[in-house]
Amino acid sequence: MRLLVPFDAREPNTRLAPLLSAVERHALAECMLADVVEAARDAGASPTVLSTGSVDCAAPVEVDDRPLTAAVNDVLAGADEPVAVVMADLALATGPVLERLFAATGDVVLAPGRGGGTNALVARDPDFRVDYHGVSFRDHLEAARESGASVRVVDSFRLAVDVDERADLLEVLLHGEGRTAAWLREAGFRVESDGGEPILARTGE
Amino acid sequence: MRLLVPFDAREPNTRLAPLLSAVERHALAECMLADVVEAARDAGASPTVLSTGSVDCAAPVEVDDRPLTAAVNDVLAGADEPVAVVMADLALATGPVLERLFAATGDVVLAPGRGGGTNALVARDPDFRVDYHGVSFRDHLEAARESGASVRVVDSFRLAVDVDERADLLEVLLHGEGRTAAWLREAGFRVESDGGEPILARTGE
Repeated sequence: MRLLVPFDAREPNTRLAPLLSAVERHALAECMLADVVEAARDAGASPTVLSTGSVDCAAPVEVDDRPLTAAVNDVLAGADEPVAVVMADLALATGPVLERLFAATGDVVLAPGRGGGTNALVARDPDFRVDYHGVSFRDHLEAARESGASVRVVDSFRLAVDVDERADLLEVLLHGEGRTAAWLREAGFRVESDGGEPILARTGE
Repeated sequence: MRLLVPFDAREPNTRLAPLLSAVERHALAECMLADVVEAARDAGASPTVLSTGSVDCAAPVEVDDRPLTAAVNDVLAGADEPVAVVMADLALATGPVLERLFAATGDVVLAPGRGGGTNALVARDPDFRVDYHGVSFRDHLEAARESGASVRVVDSFRLAVDVDERADLLEVLLHGEGRTAAWLREAGFRVESDGGEPILARTGE
Protein backbone atom coordinates (compact mmCIF):
# COMPACT_ATOMS: atom_id res chain seq x y z
CA MET A 1 0.00 0.00 0.00
CA ARG A 2 1.17 3.51 -0.81
CA LEU A 3 0.60 6.17 1.81
CA LEU A 4 0.41 9.82 0.81
CA VAL A 5 0.53 12.64 3.32
CA PRO A 6 -0.47 15.85 1.51
CA PHE A 7 1.17 18.95 2.96
CA ASP A 8 0.66 22.63 2.25
CA ALA A 9 4.13 24.14 2.44
CA ARG A 10 3.06 27.61 1.40
CA GLU A 11 0.44 29.02 3.70
CA PRO A 12 -0.35 26.40 6.30
CA ASN A 13 -2.94 27.01 9.02
CA THR A 14 -4.05 30.41 7.75
CA ARG A 15 -7.10 30.28 10.03
CA LEU A 16 -4.78 30.34 13.02
CA ALA A 17 -3.40 33.74 11.94
CA PRO A 18 -5.18 35.54 14.83
CA LEU A 19 -3.26 33.32 17.26
CA LEU A 20 0.08 32.55 15.63
CA SER A 21 2.60 34.40 13.49
CA ALA A 22 3.42 33.08 10.01
CA VAL A 23 6.68 31.65 11.33
CA GLU A 24 4.85 29.93 14.16
CA ARG A 25 2.24 28.53 11.79
CA HIS A 26 4.97 26.98 9.66
CA ALA A 27 6.62 25.50 12.73
CA LEU A 28 3.30 24.10 13.95
CA ALA A 29 2.58 22.61 10.52
CA GLU A 30 5.97 20.88 10.46
CA CYS A 31 5.38 19.46 13.95
CA MET A 32 2.04 18.05 12.86
CA LEU A 33 3.59 16.57 9.72
CA ALA A 34 6.31 14.97 11.83
CA ASP A 35 3.68 13.50 14.17
CA VAL A 36 1.69 12.06 11.25
CA VAL A 37 4.83 10.60 9.64
CA GLU A 38 5.81 9.00 12.93
CA ALA A 39 2.31 7.62 13.53
CA ALA A 40 2.36 6.16 10.00
CA ARG A 41 5.71 4.49 10.64
CA ASP A 42 4.40 3.14 13.96
CA ALA A 43 1.53 1.64 11.97
CA GLY A 44 4.01 -0.10 9.67
CA ALA A 45 3.54 2.22 6.67
CA SER A 46 6.15 4.07 4.60
CA PRO A 47 4.65 7.50 3.96
CA THR A 48 5.46 9.79 1.07
CA VAL A 49 4.82 13.47 1.70
CA LEU A 50 3.04 15.11 -1.23
CA SER A 51 3.95 18.73 -0.73
CA THR A 52 3.25 21.97 -2.54
CA GLY A 53 6.84 23.02 -1.85
CA SER A 54 10.02 21.87 -0.19
CA VAL A 55 9.72 20.79 3.42
CA ASP A 56 12.09 19.26 5.92
CA CYS A 57 10.78 15.98 7.23
CA ALA A 58 11.75 12.38 7.96
CA ALA A 59 10.06 10.92 4.87
CA PRO A 60 10.50 11.15 1.09
CA VAL A 61 8.91 14.31 -0.33
CA GLU A 62 7.29 14.63 -3.75
CA VAL A 63 6.66 18.23 -4.71
CA ASP A 64 3.50 18.93 -6.68
CA ASP A 65 2.28 22.51 -6.63
CA ARG A 66 -1.16 21.77 -8.06
CA PRO A 67 -4.28 21.90 -5.87
CA LEU A 68 -4.74 18.98 -3.48
CA THR A 69 -7.43 17.13 -5.45
CA ALA A 70 -5.48 17.13 -8.73
CA ALA A 71 -2.22 16.10 -7.09
CA VAL A 72 -3.81 13.18 -5.21
CA ASN A 73 -5.82 12.01 -8.22
CA ASP A 74 -2.67 11.94 -10.32
CA VAL A 75 -1.17 9.45 -7.86
CA LEU A 76 -4.40 7.42 -7.71
CA ALA A 77 -4.53 7.21 -11.52
CA GLY A 78 -0.98 5.91 -11.77
CA ALA A 79 -1.04 3.53 -8.79
CA ASP A 80 -0.87 -0.23 -9.20
CA GLU A 81 -1.58 -0.88 -5.52
CA PRO A 82 -3.97 0.45 -2.86
CA VAL A 83 -3.35 4.07 -1.86
CA ALA A 84 -4.00 5.65 1.52
CA VAL A 85 -4.22 9.42 1.97
CA VAL A 86 -3.80 10.87 5.46
CA MET A 87 -3.84 14.63 5.96
CA ALA A 88 -0.73 16.22 7.43
CA ASP A 89 -2.61 18.19 10.09
CA LEU A 90 -4.02 15.23 12.01
CA ALA A 91 -2.01 16.02 15.10
CA LEU A 92 -3.88 13.43 17.18
CA ALA A 93 -3.12 10.53 14.82
CA THR A 94 -1.28 7.66 16.50
CA GLY A 95 0.13 4.36 15.30
CA PRO A 96 -2.80 2.31 16.63
CA VAL A 97 -5.46 4.54 15.06
CA LEU A 98 -3.71 4.43 11.67
CA GLU A 99 -3.40 0.65 12.01
CA ARG A 100 -7.16 0.59 12.50
CA LEU A 101 -7.60 2.71 9.34
CA PHE A 102 -5.29 0.54 7.23
CA ALA A 103 -6.81 -2.70 8.55
CA ALA A 104 -10.41 -1.69 7.81
CA THR A 105 -11.78 -3.76 4.97
CA GLY A 106 -13.58 -2.20 2.01
CA ASP A 107 -12.79 -1.02 -1.50
CA VAL A 108 -12.93 2.48 -0.10
CA VAL A 109 -12.30 3.30 3.57
CA LEU A 110 -13.17 6.80 4.78
CA ALA A 111 -12.43 8.62 8.01
CA PRO A 112 -14.57 11.75 8.29
CA GLY A 113 -13.25 15.06 9.49
CA ARG A 114 -15.43 17.52 11.30
CA GLY A 115 -17.47 19.77 9.07
CA GLY A 116 -17.91 17.32 6.21
CA GLY A 117 -14.27 16.75 5.31
CA THR A 118 -12.40 13.52 4.59
CA ASN A 119 -9.35 13.42 6.81
CA ALA A 120 -8.05 9.99 5.86
CA LEU A 121 -8.94 7.32 3.34
CA VAL A 122 -7.79 4.09 1.77
CA ALA A 123 -8.59 3.49 -1.89
CA ARG A 124 -8.39 -0.15 -2.97
CA ASP A 125 -10.74 0.45 -5.91
CA PRO A 126 -8.42 1.56 -8.76
CA ASP A 127 -11.16 3.80 -10.20
CA PHE A 128 -11.75 5.81 -7.04
CA ARG A 129 -10.89 9.51 -7.32
CA VAL A 130 -10.97 12.22 -4.67
CA ASP A 131 -12.67 15.58 -4.62
CA TYR A 132 -11.72 17.55 -1.53
CA HIS A 133 -13.87 20.50 -2.49
CA GLY A 134 -17.11 21.09 -0.55
CA VAL A 135 -18.73 18.29 1.47
CA SER A 136 -16.04 15.81 0.52
CA PHE A 137 -17.06 13.07 2.94
CA ARG A 138 -20.58 12.89 1.50
CA ASP A 139 -19.26 13.16 -2.06
CA HIS A 140 -16.68 10.40 -1.53
CA LEU A 141 -19.30 8.15 0.04
CA GLU A 142 -21.70 8.69 -2.86
CA ALA A 143 -19.03 8.30 -5.53
CA ALA A 144 -17.82 5.04 -4.04
CA ARG A 145 -21.34 3.64 -3.70
CA GLU A 146 -22.31 4.69 -7.22
CA SER A 147 -19.33 2.86 -8.66
CA GLY A 148 -20.34 -0.27 -6.74
CA ALA A 149 -17.35 -0.17 -4.39
CA SER A 150 -17.78 -1.45 -0.84
CA VAL A 151 -17.34 1.36 1.66
CA ARG A 152 -16.21 1.25 5.27
CA VAL A 153 -16.31 4.32 7.52
CA VAL A 154 -13.76 4.45 10.33
CA ASP A 155 -15.18 6.00 13.49
CA SER A 156 -12.29 7.89 15.09
CA PHE A 157 -12.12 11.10 17.08
CA ARG A 158 -8.36 11.24 16.57
CA LEU A 159 -8.76 11.16 12.80
CA ALA A 160 -11.71 13.59 12.87
CA VAL A 161 -9.68 16.42 14.41
CA ASP A 162 -7.71 18.29 11.76
CA VAL A 163 -6.04 21.36 13.15
CA ASP A 164 -7.71 24.31 11.60
CA GLU A 165 -8.86 26.77 14.23
CA ARG A 166 -8.47 27.82 17.86
CA ALA A 167 -10.68 25.06 19.32
CA ASP A 168 -8.53 22.41 17.65
CA LEU A 169 -5.44 23.51 19.57
CA LEU A 170 -7.33 22.76 22.77
CA GLU A 171 -7.93 19.20 21.52
CA VAL A 172 -4.23 18.80 20.77
CA LEU A 173 -3.26 19.98 24.26
CA LEU A 174 -5.79 17.62 25.85
CA HIS A 175 -5.22 14.51 23.74
CA GLY A 176 -1.94 14.97 21.84
CA GLU A 177 1.04 12.78 22.63
CA GLY A 178 3.60 14.07 20.13
CA ARG A 179 5.66 17.01 19.00
CA THR A 180 2.67 19.22 18.26
CA ALA A 181 1.34 19.14 21.81
CA ALA A 182 4.88 19.73 23.11
CA TRP A 183 5.37 22.65 20.72
CA LEU A 184 2.10 24.27 21.82
CA ARG A 185 3.02 23.93 25.49
CA GLU A 186 6.47 25.33 24.75
CA ALA A 187 4.80 28.27 22.97
CA GLY A 188 2.85 29.02 26.14
CA PHE A 189 -0.52 27.50 25.32
CA ARG A 190 -2.52 25.69 27.96
CA VAL A 191 -6.07 24.64 28.73
CA GLU A 192 -7.77 26.62 31.45
CA SER A 193 -11.09 26.11 33.09
CA ASP A 194 -12.27 29.03 35.05
CA GLY A 195 -15.02 27.05 36.68
CA GLY A 196 -16.81 26.35 33.43
CA GLU A 197 -16.15 25.69 29.76
CA PRO A 198 -12.50 24.79 29.12
CA ILE A 199 -10.69 27.46 27.12
CA LEU A 200 -7.35 27.82 25.37
CA ALA A 201 -5.05 30.36 26.99
CA ARG A 202 -1.55 31.57 26.17
CA THR A 203 1.04 32.85 28.60
CA GLY A 204 1.48 36.58 28.16
CA GLU A 205 -1.94 37.06 26.60
CA MET B 1 -24.05 -3.41 33.93
CA ARG B 2 -26.29 -0.44 34.63
CA LEU B 3 -26.57 2.17 31.91
CA LEU B 4 -27.55 5.73 32.80
CA VAL B 5 -28.56 8.28 30.21
CA PRO B 6 -28.65 11.70 31.92
CA PHE B 7 -31.19 14.06 30.36
CA ASP B 8 -31.88 17.74 30.97
CA ALA B 9 -35.66 18.03 30.76
CA ARG B 10 -35.77 21.69 31.71
CA GLU B 11 -33.72 23.80 29.34
CA PRO B 12 -32.11 21.48 26.81
CA ASN B 13 -29.84 22.81 24.07
CA THR B 14 -29.87 26.42 25.24
CA ARG B 15 -26.94 27.21 22.95
CA LEU B 16 -29.14 26.44 19.97
CA ALA B 17 -31.53 29.25 20.94
CA PRO B 18 -30.40 31.43 18.01
CA LEU B 19 -31.51 28.66 15.64
CA LEU B 20 -34.43 26.91 17.31
CA SER B 21 -37.43 27.93 19.42
CA ALA B 22 -37.81 26.52 22.94
CA VAL B 23 -40.44 24.06 21.68
CA GLU B 24 -38.12 22.94 18.87
CA ARG B 25 -35.22 22.53 21.29
CA HIS B 26 -37.32 20.25 23.48
CA ALA B 27 -38.40 18.24 20.44
CA LEU B 28 -34.79 17.92 19.25
CA ALA B 29 -33.66 16.85 22.72
CA GLU B 30 -36.32 14.13 22.85
CA CYS B 31 -35.29 12.86 19.40
CA MET B 32 -31.67 12.64 20.53
CA LEU B 33 -32.67 10.83 23.71
CA ALA B 34 -34.74 8.38 21.66
CA ASP B 35 -31.77 7.76 19.35
CA VAL B 36 -29.44 7.13 22.29
CA VAL B 37 -31.94 4.79 23.97
CA GLU B 38 -32.35 2.85 20.73
CA ALA B 39 -28.59 2.65 20.17
CA ALA B 40 -28.18 1.37 23.74
CA ARG B 41 -30.81 -1.33 23.17
CA ASP B 42 -29.12 -2.28 19.89
CA ALA B 43 -25.94 -2.73 21.90
CA GLY B 44 -27.74 -5.07 24.27
CA ALA B 45 -28.06 -2.65 27.18
CA SER B 46 -31.13 -1.65 29.21
CA PRO B 47 -30.82 2.09 29.73
CA THR B 48 -32.33 4.09 32.57
CA VAL B 49 -32.90 7.75 31.82
CA LEU B 50 -31.76 9.96 34.69
CA SER B 51 -33.78 13.09 34.08
CA THR B 52 -34.16 16.44 35.81
CA GLY B 53 -37.88 16.24 35.10
CA SER B 54 -40.54 14.10 33.47
CA VAL B 55 -39.88 13.07 29.89
CA ASP B 56 -41.62 10.77 27.47
CA CYS B 57 -39.31 8.05 26.24
CA ALA B 58 -39.07 4.32 25.63
CA ALA B 59 -37.03 3.56 28.76
CA PRO B 60 -37.53 3.77 32.54
CA VAL B 61 -37.05 7.32 33.83
CA GLU B 62 -35.65 8.24 37.25
CA VAL B 63 -36.21 11.87 38.10
CA ASP B 64 -33.45 13.61 40.02
CA ASP B 65 -33.43 17.37 39.86
CA ARG B 66 -29.95 17.82 41.30
CA PRO B 67 -27.05 18.88 39.10
CA LEU B 68 -25.64 16.20 36.79
CA THR B 69 -22.51 15.37 38.80
CA ALA B 70 -24.40 14.84 42.09
CA ALA B 71 -27.14 12.77 40.48
CA VAL B 72 -24.68 10.45 38.69
CA ASN B 73 -22.42 10.08 41.73
CA ASP B 74 -25.39 9.08 43.85
CA VAL B 75 -26.01 6.16 41.48
CA LEU B 76 -22.29 5.27 41.38
CA ALA B 77 -22.13 5.24 45.18
CA GLY B 78 -25.06 2.87 45.47
CA ALA B 79 -24.24 0.54 42.59
CA ASP B 80 -23.19 -3.06 43.12
CA GLU B 81 -22.29 -3.56 39.46
CA PRO B 82 -20.44 -1.61 36.74
CA VAL B 83 -22.18 1.58 35.63
CA ALA B 84 -22.06 3.18 32.19
CA VAL B 85 -23.03 6.80 31.63
CA VAL B 86 -23.89 7.93 28.11
CA MET B 87 -25.05 11.48 27.47
CA ALA B 88 -28.50 11.96 25.98
CA ASP B 89 -27.34 14.33 23.25
CA LEU B 90 -25.03 11.92 21.42
CA ALA B 91 -27.17 11.94 18.31
CA LEU B 92 -24.56 10.02 16.32
CA ALA B 93 -24.36 7.10 18.76
CA THR B 94 -25.17 3.74 17.17
CA GLY B 95 -25.46 0.19 18.48
CA PRO B 96 -22.02 -0.83 17.20
CA VAL B 97 -20.24 2.17 18.70
CA LEU B 98 -21.87 1.62 22.10
CA GLU B 99 -20.95 -2.07 21.86
CA ARG B 100 -17.37 -0.93 21.37
CA LEU B 101 -17.65 1.29 24.47
CA PHE B 102 -19.17 -1.42 26.65
CA ALA B 103 -16.68 -4.04 25.42
CA ALA B 104 -13.61 -1.91 26.12
CA THR B 105 -11.66 -3.34 29.02
CA GLY B 106 -10.46 -1.21 31.91
CA ASP B 107 -11.61 -0.26 35.40
CA VAL B 108 -12.59 3.07 33.89
CA VAL B 109 -13.43 3.54 30.20
CA LEU B 110 -13.70 7.10 28.88
CA ALA B 111 -14.97 8.48 25.58
CA PRO B 112 -13.94 12.12 25.20
CA GLY B 113 -16.23 14.79 23.89
CA ARG B 114 -14.98 17.77 22.01
CA GLY B 115 -13.75 20.63 24.15
CA GLY B 116 -12.59 18.55 27.09
CA GLY B 117 -15.86 16.84 28.02
CA THR B 118 -16.58 13.22 28.86
CA ASN B 119 -19.44 12.08 26.66
CA ALA B 120 -19.57 8.45 27.71
CA LEU B 121 -17.89 6.28 30.30
CA VAL B 122 -17.95 2.90 31.98
CA ALA B 123 -17.03 2.70 35.67
CA ARG B 124 -16.07 -0.77 36.85
CA ASP B 125 -14.06 0.64 39.77
CA PRO B 126 -16.62 1.04 42.60
CA ASP B 127 -14.74 4.07 43.95
CA PHE B 128 -14.81 6.08 40.72
CA ARG B 129 -16.82 9.29 40.90
CA VAL B 130 -17.59 11.80 38.15
CA ASP B 131 -17.04 15.53 37.99
CA TYR B 132 -18.55 16.99 34.84
CA HIS B 133 -17.47 20.50 35.72
CA GLY B 134 -14.60 22.05 33.73
CA VAL B 135 -12.14 19.86 31.79
CA SER B 136 -13.90 16.67 32.84
CA PHE B 137 -12.04 14.33 30.50
CA ARG B 138 -8.67 15.34 31.93
CA ASP B 139 -10.02 15.27 35.48
CA HIS B 140 -11.58 11.82 35.05
CA LEU B 141 -8.36 10.48 33.55
CA GLU B 142 -6.29 11.85 36.42
CA ALA B 143 -8.73 10.70 39.11
CA ALA B 144 -8.81 7.17 37.71
CA ARG B 145 -5.02 6.98 37.42
CA GLU B 146 -4.47 8.39 40.90
CA SER B 147 -6.71 5.73 42.40
CA GLY B 148 -4.72 3.04 40.57
CA ALA B 149 -7.58 2.12 38.24
CA SER B 150 -6.73 0.92 34.74
CA VAL B 151 -8.04 3.37 32.14
CA ARG B 152 -9.05 2.80 28.55
CA VAL B 153 -9.93 5.66 26.20
CA VAL B 154 -12.36 4.88 23.39
CA ASP B 155 -11.49 6.72 20.18
CA SER B 156 -14.82 7.52 18.54
CA PHE B 157 -15.99 10.45 16.45
CA ARG B 158 -19.62 9.39 16.98
CA LEU B 159 -19.22 9.57 20.74
CA ALA B 160 -17.22 12.81 20.58
CA VAL B 161 -20.04 14.79 18.97
CA ASP B 162 -22.51 16.00 21.57
CA VAL B 163 -25.08 18.34 20.10
CA ASP B 164 -24.43 21.71 21.54
CA GLU B 165 -24.13 24.33 18.84
CA ARG B 166 -24.80 25.08 15.20
CA ALA B 167 -21.83 23.14 13.79
CA ASP B 168 -23.02 19.99 15.56
CA LEU B 169 -26.30 19.98 13.62
CA LEU B 170 -24.26 19.79 10.43
CA GLU B 171 -22.55 16.65 11.78
CA VAL B 172 -25.94 15.10 12.58
CA LEU B 173 -27.21 15.80 9.06
CA LEU B 174 -24.07 14.32 7.51
CA HIS B 175 -23.61 11.25 9.72
CA GLY B 176 -26.87 10.70 11.61
CA GLU B 177 -28.99 7.67 10.91
CA GLY B 178 -31.86 8.12 13.36
CA ARG B 179 -34.74 10.29 14.42
CA THR B 180 -32.61 13.37 15.08
CA ALA B 181 -31.32 13.62 11.53
CA ALA B 182 -34.85 13.00 10.22
CA TRP B 183 -36.26 15.69 12.53
CA LEU B 184 -33.67 18.23 11.37
CA ARG B 185 -34.41 17.52 7.71
CA GLU B 186 -38.13 17.77 8.42
CA ALA B 187 -37.49 21.13 10.12
CA GLY B 188 -35.89 22.38 6.92
CA PHE B 189 -32.20 22.03 7.78
CA ARG B 190 -29.72 20.87 5.17
CA VAL B 191 -26.00 20.99 4.42
CA GLU B 192 -25.01 23.32 1.62
CA SER B 193 -21.70 23.85 0.00
CA ASP B 194 -21.50 26.93 -2.07
CA GLY B 195 -18.24 25.88 -3.65
CA GLY B 196 -16.36 25.88 -0.37
CA GLU B 197 -16.78 25.16 3.32
CA PRO B 198 -19.97 23.16 4.01
CA ILE B 199 -22.55 25.19 5.93
CA LEU B 200 -25.82 24.51 7.70
CA ALA B 201 -28.81 26.13 5.98
CA ARG B 202 -32.51 26.18 6.80
CA THR B 203 -35.36 26.53 4.33
CA GLY B 204 -37.00 29.94 4.69
CA GLU B 205 -33.91 31.52 6.25
